[in-house]
Amino acid sequence: MDKYDIIGKSVPRNHTKDKATGAAQYTDDIKLPGMLHGRILRSPYAHARILNIDTSRAEALAGVKCVITGNDLPDIKFGNWRLFTETQDETGLARDRVRFIGDEVAAVAAIDKDIAEEALSLIRVEYEELPASFDIDTSLGKGAPIIHDPFKNNISVVRKVANGDLDKAFSECDYIREDVFNVHAISACYLEPCSSLAKCDPDGKITLWTSTQTPYMVQCLLASALGMRENDIRVIKPHVGGGFGAKMELRKWDVCAAFMAKKTGKPVKFTLTREEELATGRRRHPMRLFSKVGCKKDGTLVAKDLKILLDGGAYNAMGPTATFLCGNFGLMLYKYKSYRFLGQHVYTNNPPSSAIRGFGSPQSYFATETQMNLIAEDLGIDPIEIRRMNAVKTGDVIPELSTIGSCAFSECLDKVIEVSGYHEKRKNPKKGRGIGIGCYSFISGGVFNWFNTQYPFSAAEIRAFADGTVHLLTMASDIGQGSDTILPQILAEELGLKMEDIRITSADTATTPQADLGSWGSRVTLMAGNAVIDAAKKLKEILFGAVTAHYNLNVIHELECKDGRIFSQVRPDKGLTFGQAVALAQKFNRGVPIVTRGSYTPRGMGMVTPAFSFGAQVAEVEVDEKTGRVEVKKMWTAHDCGTVLNPVSVEGQLEGSIHMGLGYVLSEQFAMEKGKTLNTTFLDYKMPSALDMPVSESICIETYEKEGPYGAKEAGEGLVGPTAPAIADAVYNAVGYRCMDMPITPEKVLKGKKDSLN
Amino acid sequence: MDKYDIIGKSVPRNHTKDKATGAAQYTDDIKLPGMLHGRILRSPYAHARILNIDTSRAEALAGVKCVITGNDLPDIKFGNWRLFTETQDETGLARDRVRFIGDEVAAVAAIDKDIAEEALSLIRVEYEELPASFDIDTSLGKGAPIIHDPFKNNISVVRKVANGDLDKAFSECDYIREDVFNVHAISACYLEPCSSLAKCDPDGKITLWTSTQTPYMVQCLLASALGMRENDIRVIKPHVGGGFGAKMELRKWDVCAAFMAKKTGKPVKFTLTREEELATGRRRHPMRLFSKVGCKKDGTLVAKDLKILLDGGAYNAMGPTATFLCGNFGLMLYKYKSYRFLGQHVYTNNPPSSAIRGFGSPQSYFATETQMNLIAEDLGIDPIEIRRMNAVKTGDVIPELSTIGSCAFSECLDKVIEVSGYHEKRKNPKKGRGIGIGCYSFISGGVFNWFNTQYPFSAAEIRAFADGTVHLLTMASDIGQGSDTILPQILAEELGLKMEDIRITSADTATTPQADLGSWGSRVTLMAGNAVIDAAKKLKEILFGAVTAHYNLNVIHELECKDGRIFSQVRPDKGLTFGQAVALAQKFNRGVPIVTRGSYTPRGMGMVTPAFSFGAQVAEVEVDEKTGRVEVKKMWTAHDCGTVLNPVSVEGQLEGSIHMGLGYVLSEQFAMEKGKTLNTTFLDYKMPSALDMPVSESICIETYEKEGPYGAKEAGEGLVGPTAPAIADAVYNAVGYRCMDMPITPEKVLKGKKDSLN
Repeated sequence: MDKYDIIGKSVPRNHTKDKATGAAQYTDDIKLPGMLHGRILRSPYAHARILNIDTSRAEALAGVKCVITGNDLPDIKFGNWRLFTETQDETGLARDRVRFIGDEVAAVAAIDKDIAEEALSLIRVEYEELPASFDIDTSLGKGAPIIHDPFKNNISVVRKVANGDLDKAFSECDYIREDVFNVHAISACYLEPCSSLAKCDPDGKITLWTSTQTPYMVQCLLASALGMRENDIRVIKPHVGGGFGAKMELRKWDVCAAFMAKKTGKPVKFTLTREEELATGRRRHPMRLFSKVGCKKDGTLVAKDLKILLDGGAYNAMGPTATFLCGNFGLMLYKYKSYRFLGQHVYTNNPPSSAIRGFGSPQSYFATETQMNLIAEDLGIDPIEIRRMNAVKTGDVIPELSTIGSCAFSECLDKVIEVSGYHEKRKNPKKGRGIGIGCYSFISGGVFNWFNTQYPFSAAEIRAFADGTVHLLTMASDIGQGSDTILPQILAEELGLKMEDIRITSADTATTPQADLGSWGSRVTLMAGNAVIDAAKKLKEILFGAVTAHYNLNVIHELECKDGRIFSQVRPDKGLTFGQAVALAQKFNRGVPIVTRGSYTPRGMGMVTPAFSFGAQVAEVEVDEKTGRVEVKKMWTAHDCGTVLNPVSVEGQLEGSIHMGLGYVLSEQFAMEKGKTLNTTFLDYKMPSALDMPVSESICIETYEKEGPYGAKEAGEGLVGPTAPAIADAVYNAVGYRCMDMPITPEKVLKGKKDSLN
Repeated sequence: MDKYDIIGKSVPRNHTKDKATGAAQYTDDIKLPGMLHGRILRSPYAHARILNIDTSRAEALAGVKCVITGNDLPDIKFGNWRLFTETQDETGLARDRVRFIGDEVAAVAAIDKDIAEEALSLIRVEYEELPASFDIDTSLGKGAPIIHDPFKNNISVVRKVANGDLDKAFSECDYIREDVFNVHAISACYLEPCSSLAKCDPDGKITLWTSTQTPYMVQCLLASALGMRENDIRVIKPHVGGGFGAKMELRKWDVCAAFMAKKTGKPVKFTLTREEELATGRRRHPMRLFSKVGCKKDGTLVAKDLKILLDGGAYNAMGPTATFLCGNFGLMLYKYKSYRFLGQHVYTNNPPSSAIRGFGSPQSYFATETQMNLIAEDLGIDPIEIRRMNAVKTGDVIPELSTIGSCAFSECLDKVIEVSGYHEKRKNPKKGRGIGIGCYSFISGGVFNWFNTQYPFSAAEIRAFADGTVHLLTMASDIGQGSDTILPQILAEELGLKMEDIRITSADTATTPQADLGSWGSRVTLMAGNAVIDAAKKLKEILFGAVTAHYNLNVIHELECKDGRIFSQVRPDKGLTFGQAVALAQKFNRGVPIVTRGSYTPRGMGMVTPAFSFGAQVAEVEVDEKTGRVEVKKMWTAHDCGTVLNPVSVEGQLEGSIHMGLGYVLSEQFAMEKGKTLNTTFLDYKMPSALDMPVSESICIETYEKEGPYGAKEAGEGLVGPTAPAIADAVYNAVGYRCMDMPITPEKVLKGKKDSLN
């Protein structure tokens, strides 16, 4: 008999049919009476001073209802890192300077989109062009243009980690290797472009529907950007067509929509085009990683000195988190006696970098894992063996960060090697074929409270009804990752109910309980899941009391919720249906409805994350030696995400991760010319298609994570990390080209390949 | 200094600007992707058997997505009186019989309204016409058609009241008078026709937006009509353009919209036309009232024997309540040693009667007040004096019903007589001019739980935030009467905040707290108001605790909320702002948000109402003796609604009541021909226009009602009662025509006038 009734089952997603039939309402689907359409004027310069903006001709155009520039908006800076206000470097529109091509300069609201677009062309902006920097070297070099005045060296965030005596540790090493890796920018490629619709009530209160991962953050930051009170703003998240980290900030069109709705008294909607998204949207951080690693001759790792320079682009966005996290990722997978990290977040005049699935880990693991292969090769050690001997395990303490509560990293390594035939294939190479390995560890949400929330990290309310149903209210946000399914699934298990017994209302800051930090860093299942369990436990206490009273049971009887009934474990006949128990409890309460609230904030879990997930991935590729084209034949994955709550959902996340990893390493890249993005459609920005996807085989090595709901931890994000190094390693194995600078292109393969191999 | 900061102030309504500018969303304004438009086929017969319905041609019409008849729907009857299931006599569509012209027979959903309308014309229904009854006499006569089979005598509800020894009481009388009054049907004339929009989630759960006064009742009844669970249905009340009692039931288009949304997988909307509303909508009950009253020769009332026959039309609707209430109204104004009441609710084949503002009282007071004038005239007693000597007063016990907690009826009489110059004008009559009196008492919501709710009668949740705002959630429904303003006003007073500090979310069964019985019987201010105060008291305990701890105050210190601060009454410097206190309380709570819930159910208040309001009204009319036309020159009103919470709102209610009373007595009437309504537009159904409104002067005689919030009680509905008898009395005073059969028409005046008077 299964331990659980519904946990561990492949429960289909709630919204699938609505999304497939077009019934699901995304922000852009919402139409309100008298609604205006907004468009944004963007800077054609990468760096310039704004001397003058003449909006008069635009304002005179029939159908234009409102034109604003940066000076119309409050002079208030915003940014996600509220705990460190000096990181907050954006305003609703550019005030005096533009810092990248596409920087938002003015906004128009008109009765239709065409008129708004035409009005943009009538706005005259006088710019004084300034010297610009498009790479880290220029920004850090002498005489570099200063992109934000308070940061004279263009370094906006510095993160240092230092464990142990590094010099001593290196002095003990038999072998030391130093490498430099370069990784590039990619787009999140969510299918729904950003969209915001604001309505202003007659009393000045704002309702904002927006395509966001973080309604609560948007509420708080919009309030601060407009000089309003948080709760005079209501943020509603409709269906969201993907975010992947790139929709977790307050965006300028949120500010413009709200401000213009207030100014005009009419609802205002902005929806970006794909061209805008690709040319100006948030990107994964390009980084330069300097990694010095020392070890014993048997391969035992001793010391690591990692320095990472992040190209943050024109604004910080989620850069501070990336800077912190890529330092953490540098020591999450293997043990070192001493570890030092220096991260520097560097402003350039590129479009801003920010969070994209993996959040610093794809870059970090590309370096770590490639370097592990290089060390193994240098020392003549099997690359799997060197990993296994240095792998972290359950109970290991990551200095100053956390204790690893559950870890099946070694088991994952063993399993993926076995199922992929890695050693067999390495021993018997085929021409043009190669096999490679990549590994990862990932977080289950963050602990460090950079947003400075005053609320629990996640919260849930449960309302129970005599008709046998319950209503779950939570500010957790389903952005396609499935929390509107997994949270009811957890609740159904707790209460012994079925999925159809549960209604969920989520992600509306006015009607769901305060608060939830949003959907990022793979935090929702663990944190919001724990909040749901907390609320369910309180509900069960009430209902157990009702049954105990009804049957006059000894108060030490243990009771249970199962199959829609609540009953004594030792006397299962003594029981009521769930609805009967609610009705009885409500009568005890003289009719007052049965409502409980739960919450979760990580306690005693260090400053990084409550739980670590792990995995190993093997890629097999075929390289066309004439064209340099790489075809990924198959991927094998073994990963430890704790208890698998919903197998089909985990599988979907894995497929998605491979898809994004594949694009990252092989096909996606921005063609840039002095800060200008040349490939702004999906015809020339090469996101892999379904046909490009390799066959994939995966195994979940289940562990039980004490801090997670039913033992679960992260399952949707970390796997984006190992794909790039695994494929790169396989390419090296196939043709001898060792990629140190992402991505792998046919040109690089042709130039770098060695005929001597395979 | 005022006792209150905001109570008693004329706070403007929340939604005024939105309504004035067209930004307010009513149900019909909501458009969903893929939405279908529904239309209803109605019976052309007043009473007929349905032999066959052929929908094939309609189904074949391009654009038609769904056609249903009664047999497609579950065979489940519904109706508001859930406590007595035998009163539940409606189904979603007619199953085998139609019972009035307009009875709902089939429904079509199509891609636009025109196609739906065309499809109706393609449905072929074979009827077998049955004998019909269009009046009480026929229904109660021998060989009457039986309209609902279980009720062989066509009497569906009987209500009896008997206090004291009636025969003995009449035997003690010096004078006995028996009269028969007839009152007619009118329309509620709400400006927004009924509209319902249903969406079905992929898991079968329904969301219904509907123009209703009672979202919770609609939720429950729709669930029962569709054989679903209550909480698998979510009912949202958008802005409502008036209801006046006639929108407090589950309606057939609610059922059809929900059922067809489920069947088609697409949203379905029904919006009625004005013609449908006037021809088939709910009407005020026509009644025949037999009133026998006995008194001493000095005018002291002794005995009353009241029998009322209600023409319920084809279905019960809210008829049971009307039958009960008109018996209560019969003894709420004056004291009798013995009182007997018999109410009989009679089925006819007229369009169903139901609740309309006043709920049995306009009919009842027309009889009571006219008869009081007749008795006074017979006995030669001043009509004011006979009222004053028999008037109920504070502390009087209404046998088996209630104790009157506060009453300024006599003071109202004195005041209205004084300001109107009643006696002076009666003494010195002008030709064609007359002055008359009418009085009323009304309820502040009902106690008898005919809906059989399992929840408190009203509930409220308050969420308090560190930014100094609070959020009030309640299922109370603003239908134009202003509860979305008065409830925040009460909360603002309790917490020492301003109106702009409060956000209200109301009337959404999925996100506001269970439950509220809805907006009818003038229950909301008292009941939902008390629930708000209950929740506020709990919040204040928390915040007072925070301030007490912060300043280390002696725990017996009394604290106060005022002007946005919370402070010690004896040491006002020891205080925090409201937001600071919330922030502190939240910190004490380790971040868990501050939320309190309150509720109200009347306790120990008898079975009728928690509080009684009173008033007296004087009308002055001018009658054109040539045409018989009556012009109301002025109305004077003195009324006791307890504490006046919002003067401008009370004034608005008074103006509205006079408007409806005026139409009732002088101009509104259905032209009926064998059950068919001939006047179905506002061109020939004569609702008074703004130009018809008389000058009005009103005085509130404030009392303090202990059971009401801040001493308030009913203020919006009872005043519709005295207008008709006051005007009728004034017409009699002018030209000698005494109206015993409503309404007063020029024909009746010409026929009944006596030249001898004035």
